[in-house]
Amino acid sequence: MRTIYWSESNGGSINLLDQTKLPSQIEELTIDNHSDLVAAIKRLSVRGAPALGVAGALGVALILLRAESEKWDAVQISKAISELRDARPTAVNLAWGVDQVTPLAKSGAAAVLKRALELAAEDAKACRAMGRIGTDYLVEKLGNRKLRILTHCNTGALATTEWGTALGVVQELHGRGLIEEVFADETRPLLQGSRLTAWELSQAKIPYRILPDGAAASALFSGLIDAVLIGADRIAKNGDSANKIGSLAVAVAAHEAKVPFLVVAPESTVDRKLATGAEIEIEFRGDDEVTNFAGVRTAPLGALTYNPAFDVTPARYIAAVVTEKEVYEVSKGVSL
Amino acid sequence: MRTIYWSESNGGSINLLDQTKLPSQIEELTIDNHSDLVAAIKRLSVRGAPALGVAGALGVALILLRAESEKWDAVQISKAISELRDARPTAVNLAWGVDQVTPLAKSGAAAVLKRALELAAEDAKACRAMGRIGTDYLVEKLGNRKLRILTHCNTGALATTEWGTALGVVQELHGRGLIEEVFADETRPLLQGSRLTAWELSQAKIPYRILPDGAAASALFSGLIDAVLIGADRIAKNGDSANKIGSLAVAVAAHEAKVPFLVVAPESTVDRKLATGAEIEIEFRGDDEVTNFAGVRTAPLGALTYNPAFDVTPARYIAAVVTEKEVYEVSKGVSL
Repeated sequence: MRTIYWSESNGGSINLLDQTKLPSQIEELTIDNHSDLVAAIKRLSVRGAPALGVAGALGVALILLRAESEKWDAVQISKAISELRDARPTAVNLAWGVDQVTPLAKSGAAAVLKRALELAAEDAKACRAMGRIGTDYLVEKLGNRKLRILTHCNTGALATTEWGTALGVVQELHGRGLIEEVFADETRPLLQGSRLTAWELSQAKIPYRILPDGAAASALFSGLIDAVLIGADRIAKNGDSANKIGSLAVAVAAHEAKVPFLVVAPESTVDRKLATGAEIEIEFRGDDEVTNFAGVRTAPLGALTYNPAFDVTPARYIAAVVTEKEVYEVSKGVSL
Repeated sequence: MRTIYWSESNGGSINLLDQTKLPSQIEELTIDNHSDLVAAIKRLSVRGAPALGVAGALGVALILLRAESEKWDAVQISKAISELRDARPTAVNLAWGVDQVTPLAKSGAAAVLKRALELAAEDAKACRAMGRIGTDYLVEKLGNRKLRILTHCNTGALATTEWGTALGVVQELHGRGLIEEVFADETRPLLQGSRLTAWELSQAKIPYRILPDGAAASALFSGLIDAVLIGADRIAKNGDSANKIGSLAVAVAAHEAKVPFLVVAPESTVDRKLATGAEIEIEFRGDDEVTNFAGVRTAPLGALTYNPAFDVTPARYIAAVVTEKEVYEVSKGVSL
């Protein structure tokens, strides 16, 4: 199972496991133009900050290949790259991936593609490193014992090129025999927890339970959780972290229940230009995600919603941010 | 629209608006035997602590009427009353309603029915009183201005005989021109917020938005909410309050965001036998509520869940418990 990869078919294309269809259908999309890629990103066929970084870099390669064969001018190229870069505003990785390879555009599509593929390989390596560093940190803090981990949204192989960020730590813990059970928040409105995380955990044969997002505080206050592990879409210099909507509620409850709350994300998710999370732009999404489910209307006609895709957890609730480089204990005032 | 009422059809029956069908279908159930009533309570066709109290009292009347016409012995009667009383464990009101009328059983079905109908009328009156007292308290604390209220689950006319508890305060505020907007948590897994609360608000033409439960903390931390109003299913003497799963997360976030969090419930919800919330029995419900939606499976086959129907909010997060009698400022140490 590969989340995102390059293939030479159709004169060069990006292949995505369509995450809107999981777990009921395992379906791969072959994307050979940037408009289809932007649409796939917006509807969350590919999602997860690190995977979006790779999608951004490969997307620039795709644009340049088409530009070469179809003789686009500089304005067309620049417009296409901007559309891709701005497809979703909150996760810094998408823009980061685009920006990593765009300076190579003058050397041609092949040079860009080469660098994009390197970024994908580096992401996979970074995930393994986060898994090791995060596990070592938990063992140091909580002892070498089986842990009950709560997580939110999906931060596994589906959110990265492979292995995962927060779920990469879970995989590493499991590999060392240190997982008792994972509590996976279902993650409304789009159910990335029950659709994607539960599916990855079941594939890996890691014991898990799914819970409504509102039940996480109950689990934390009932003493059922040893640590919370989540990902991030953008992290400010002081450690304030934007992540999937619902993360903040879990962080606050974990703080009150005295359960360590860890953010696991690659260095590419850290946006050191931002002093605090107040500067992070939050994406709002449509009403239908909340008022409809599987084609069934669940709310009165005309109902409006409050549907931010992300929230920002202040650093004071975050025991540590774990990257492939180090552990930043941000609630103690350490900055990134 | 009546949530629950008695009619003389079928030799005496309880009529329920089937809350599992709203808002897509408005369908009334006519229930003429206690087994059907127990089933309706378990599947949440009737729900909400005060409405369950009335269902308990009317249910005893129904049992005694059938016992008289079908010549049941004392054991059969007592078994039927126990089944009804234990249909759901967390809301004290169901047992309370049963216990209010059972001592009258020796005087016959008619006496029990008369008392049950009085309890229904008293509930309606109590809701109006809570509405006034809660509104006066908010005006005193927050000023005579339009408020943005967040609520969880359904505490309106559908949860009571009429008017509502927390939503009764919203109705009263609206009547005085003091509602700017209501944020209604959708309330997973059974969506009482988007299905029932939103429907009641739309009927009353009160401006509202529906939000995923996980987004409540974002709304609170973003300064979009002036006060949180919720109901309760059982309140301990110290103010610890059991309410629909997800309430605790909202309470903790409201506390951190310095937004007052009020519990609105009748005196019949207060269980003064319990010193603290630790003694409240929490009902757990089946996996299917979390892993399926509208007949569509949303999680891997065999997925287990953590699905408590309620959580307990410690009194320290509750600015006040509002009943039809008075305002108890429980976070200041006032007990009930």
